[in-house]
Amino acid sequence: MNFHYPSGKKYAVAKSTSSKKQTPKAPTQFGKRGMSLEDELNESNQFYLAHGIAVIHKKPTPIQIVKVDYPKRSAAVIREAYFRQASTTDYNGVYKGYYLDFDAKETKRKTAFPLDNFHAHQIRHMKACLAADGICFTIIKFVELDQIFLLPATNLFFYWDRQQTGGRKSIPLSYIKENGYLIKYRLNPLIPYLKAVDQLLIEQYEGEHNAKE
Amino acid sequence: MNFHYPSGKKYAVAKSTSSKKQTPKAPTQFGKRGMSLEDELNESNQFYLAHGIAVIHKKPTPIQIVKVDYPKRSAAVIREAYFRQASTTDYNGVYKGYYLDFDAKETKRKTAFPLDNFHAHQIRHMKACLAADGICFTIIKFVELDQIFLLPATNLFFYWDRQQTGGRKSIPLSYIKENGYLIKYRLNPLIPYLKAVDQLLIEQYEGEHNAKE
Repeated sequence: MNFHYPSGKKYAVAKSTSSKKQTPKAPTQFGKRGMSLEDELNESNQFYLAHGIAVIHKKPTPIQIVKVDYPKRSAAVIREAYFRQASTTDYNGVYKGYYLDFDAKETKRKTAFPLDNFHAHQIRHMKACLAADGICFTIIKFVELDQIFLLPATNLFFYWDRQQTGGRKSIPLSYIKENGYLIKYRLNPLIPYLKAVDQLLIEQYEGEHNAKE
Repeated sequence: MNFHYPSGKKYAVAKSTSSKKQTPKAPTQFGKRGMSLEDELNESNQFYLAHGIAVIHKKPTPIQIVKVDYPKRSAAVIREAYFRQASTTDYNGVYKGYYLDFDAKETKRKTAFPLDNFHAHQIRHMKACLAADGICFTIIKFVELDQIFLLPATNLFFYWDRQQTGGRKSIPLSYIKENGYLIKYRLNPLIPYLKAVDQLLIEQYEGEHNAKE
């Protein structure tokens, strides 16, 4: 089935996926309906890995294991365990010799990104990584607008730190548009966020550091 | 309790830890008896983090969750889950802008390190990281000798690849001594492996890449 949007552009469904209650507001060309940002990123990371471009993984969820059964002749079964709060961000890896570290967040808000999506320990972790010369950012998806941005960690810190002293509790979309990088859905990979990282490297790092390539 | 070794050196127990069946062969000065290499590395990584030197974490064990209970007014309890095989190495992080990626392995052997300590997917992961200009290595502890080495991934690959075509199934200690970096126990941090990384960077990378510092 093909959709024809007012712009005349054809909407190509990349794979058959269900649309899960989402009403697309913008004429996204390749976005897969019903996929979470996490799924989309994992698929993109698989593409980058398979093509030798970057090695970036989502870290496993940290679990506190309390009780494990070891049945005879079969795999160990965890019978009691609890979710622990992660002390770091969700994603990290290597691209062109650079250490990348980021979190991915979705919001249904349309005009601003609420800061309560972050925990203090994640901000602390990103600040530590930045101090060790890592490349830190957050990937923000405005679900209702179907728009994804890469926002450098320093811009996030600006709002986070100001919030501590009574500043607003969200980052305005206008600020994100101005200081972040719009990531447009593609087919391969689905979310080509390393293009945004390239821009970030050029604008923010090449001046300070010697380029490694 | 103080131990006096034939060398006359005093063995200082840093914290009260049990000695767990280990017969120390070498007069380690600061090594903590009964601590696993993982514990020692985690403690060292905490030191590096607290001092703003590097941000390196052990990844959580990947778990396949099958059943979760959500009791009223208390935390979710995982009731059935299984251990999954990790698709990466255990440790990664950032140091001076470099992406570090490594595994840590112990052996009770005294003359060689058995290659069956590694899985094919770990080797594949390290090769991918190296191709993306990451700094990859393995930290090997010879428990009985109480000696720890950092062995660059390329040296590991040499023996791993040769094994596939009928080569020996272990890396001789003499080879590790010659091509790796001995890491001596210290107090802060317990395992100062970033010193070995510094040497590795100087010897293997500074020539090829522009130094980032």
